[in-house]
Amino acid sequence: MNTTDRQRLFIQDVAVRDGFQIEPRFVPTEQKIALIDRLGRCGLAKIEVTSFSSPKAIPMLADAEVVMRGIARIEGVEYAALVPNLRGCERALACNVDEINLVMSASESHNRANLGMSCEDSLRQFAKILPLAHGATAINASLSTAFGCPFEGSVPAGRVMDLIARLTDMGIARVSLCDTTGMANPAQVEDIFGSVLRMWPTLQVTAHFHNTRGMGLANAVAALNAGVRHFDASLGGLGGCPFAPGATGNVCTEDLVHMFDSMGWNTGVDLTELLEVAAALPIIVGHDVPGQVLKAGPWTRRHALPPTQGSPAMSPSNVCAGVRA
Amino acid sequence: MNTTDRQRLFIQDVAVRDGFQIEPRFVPTEQKIALIDRLGRCGLAKIEVTSFSSPKAIPMLADAEVVMRGIARIEGVEYAALVPNLRGCERALACNVDEINLVMSASESHNRANLGMSCEDSLRQFAKILPLAHGATAINASLSTAFGCPFEGSVPAGRVMDLIARLTDMGIARVSLCDTTGMANPAQVEDIFGSVLRMWPTLQVTAHFHNTRGMGLANAVAALNAGVRHFDASLGGLGGCPFAPGATGNVCTEDLVHMFDSMGWNTGVDLTELLEVAAALPIIVGHDVPGQVLKAGPWTRRHALPPTQGSPAMSPSNVCAGVRA
Repeated sequence: MNTTDRQRLFIQDVAVRDGFQIEPRFVPTEQKIALIDRLGRCGLAKIEVTSFSSPKAIPMLADAEVVMRGIARIEGVEYAALVPNLRGCERALACNVDEINLVMSASESHNRANLGMSCEDSLRQFAKILPLAHGATAINASLSTAFGCPFEGSVPAGRVMDLIARLTDMGIARVSLCDTTGMANPAQVEDIFGSVLRMWPTLQVTAHFHNTRGMGLANAVAALNAGVRHFDASLGGLGGCPFAPGATGNVCTEDLVHMFDSMGWNTGVDLTELLEVAAALPIIVGHDVPGQVLKAGPWTRRHALPPTQGSPAMSPSNVCAGVRA
Repeated sequence: MNTTDRQRLFIQDVAVRDGFQIEPRFVPTEQKIALIDRLGRCGLAKIEVTSFSSPKAIPMLADAEVVMRGIARIEGVEYAALVPNLRGCERALACNVDEINLVMSASESHNRANLGMSCEDSLRQFAKILPLAHGATAINASLSTAFGCPFEGSVPAGRVMDLIARLTDMGIARVSLCDTTGMANPAQVEDIFGSVLRMWPTLQVTAHFHNTRGMGLANAVAALNAGVRHFDASLGGLGGCPFAPGATGNVCTEDLVHMFDSMGWNTGVDLTELLEVAAALPIIVGHDVPGQVLKAGPWTRRHALPPTQGSPAMSPSNVCAGVRA
């Protein structure tokens, strides 16, 4: 994986953390480890392995240490973990994670609902964690609701810029802007990421989209057009929003890789292998998942010609399917 | 509907033709008429009402005349119909359609599989139909498989340009480029539509996408960026590809309108009304449909704050859902 490649994109899969955490059925630790190892072999740039949260808060990820220590650490793949507090950071560092992911919301009400504290308290907590982590691991800060808040509505771009300034002032060199409940649109995405990258050209900026309203891939292209090269996605499109029952979840990793591939970008990911891993996911979680390329096959898939129908030239002949436009 | 509005987009709904034609269960004529009338009242620019095909070829649309004569012709809405041959054109003109839609494929094998004739025979047939239609109705030509063929694979952009040249030379002023089986990607879409609009700046060019591999809305934004202002879409995302079982169908009208709305464009469509019409669709066709905005609600939807949890500031508190990024 040549990181100086002009056309190179960097995909992080978040299914095992962001996706699994809302699954109702516990996924056995050994299945998590096997899945992460398979994902690592596909050529993903980064995998969000787990969250070092309280086991009471997120029982699904109560096995954080066992998973983190049990996985194969494939060269060239970064293994990240969400860290909600100082204790979580200590636990993550003890497991030698490649990156800790700190999370706060851009909107006050979502931060309180999601994390039980004010945005200022989140920033103060980051400031306590950073001295522990600096030098020991890479540090990413994720801004939830950066494109809109399900409680407050619009989140001003200026608010997002101010928060990024606070984070970079602390020495944080990686920031994810997250469309937590799928409110972003492509015009807004191109605008905000364009502003961020003009202001902080050396910041490693990640786009984290949900497909709640079908715009996930459109937003990814908009971010790409703005200069973003790092993307989060979730195998099978796992994950989602507790406020939108029936809606789909995170942008689907294999659909995102497939799109970037077809556009001529290099994701470093072997799509065929990734699709094989994705095919196993419904068995692991016990239900169908929203990813579409697995169902339709990649765009390179060829179909056999249907049997010739002896129809006259002046009438439509595809009796079963009608005329296809 | 001010057609000189710089930000105005024109949406044609094709559910009743392109969507219904592959539905296994016949939709009663009066239900078709009621649905078309409801769609017309939403502010859509155009509705593809039916196909004047052989009733034996497409039994679902055997009621073409009754539907076309039964609908209310709302001012400002164009009522189009697919016309596969000279006889179909005569029938369409007798019903006073606003536009006839001629269809051929950009790829030879798909044209033969779909229409039972060669591409040259299709062009010869167009040449026979045109004298009958010119002056009596608007004429659109749809090029299926313009972004790829499920049998042949890639379709060279030069082939598409050559065919458009043939069509415009015949005097056709409206052309749709159709991604029949969802093979297009945003880079290709922006490239081809950009070339077409540079070559024929006064041609009315329509983008017709399928969401087979999840890229439908991303392709729509790419076409928009290239200058396209006319889009086909299907209520609920009805329609689809017989070669991709389980895959979704045409780009969903309400999802497309919702995206353009949120981006600040004027589609002329009342999204709230359109969502109400879409909500009735599963009852009409007897199954769930892939549209996502109906499930999640529009991006402007607000949710009530969850009950406050008395959690300490330094631990994550969203016990049920985990930390949302």
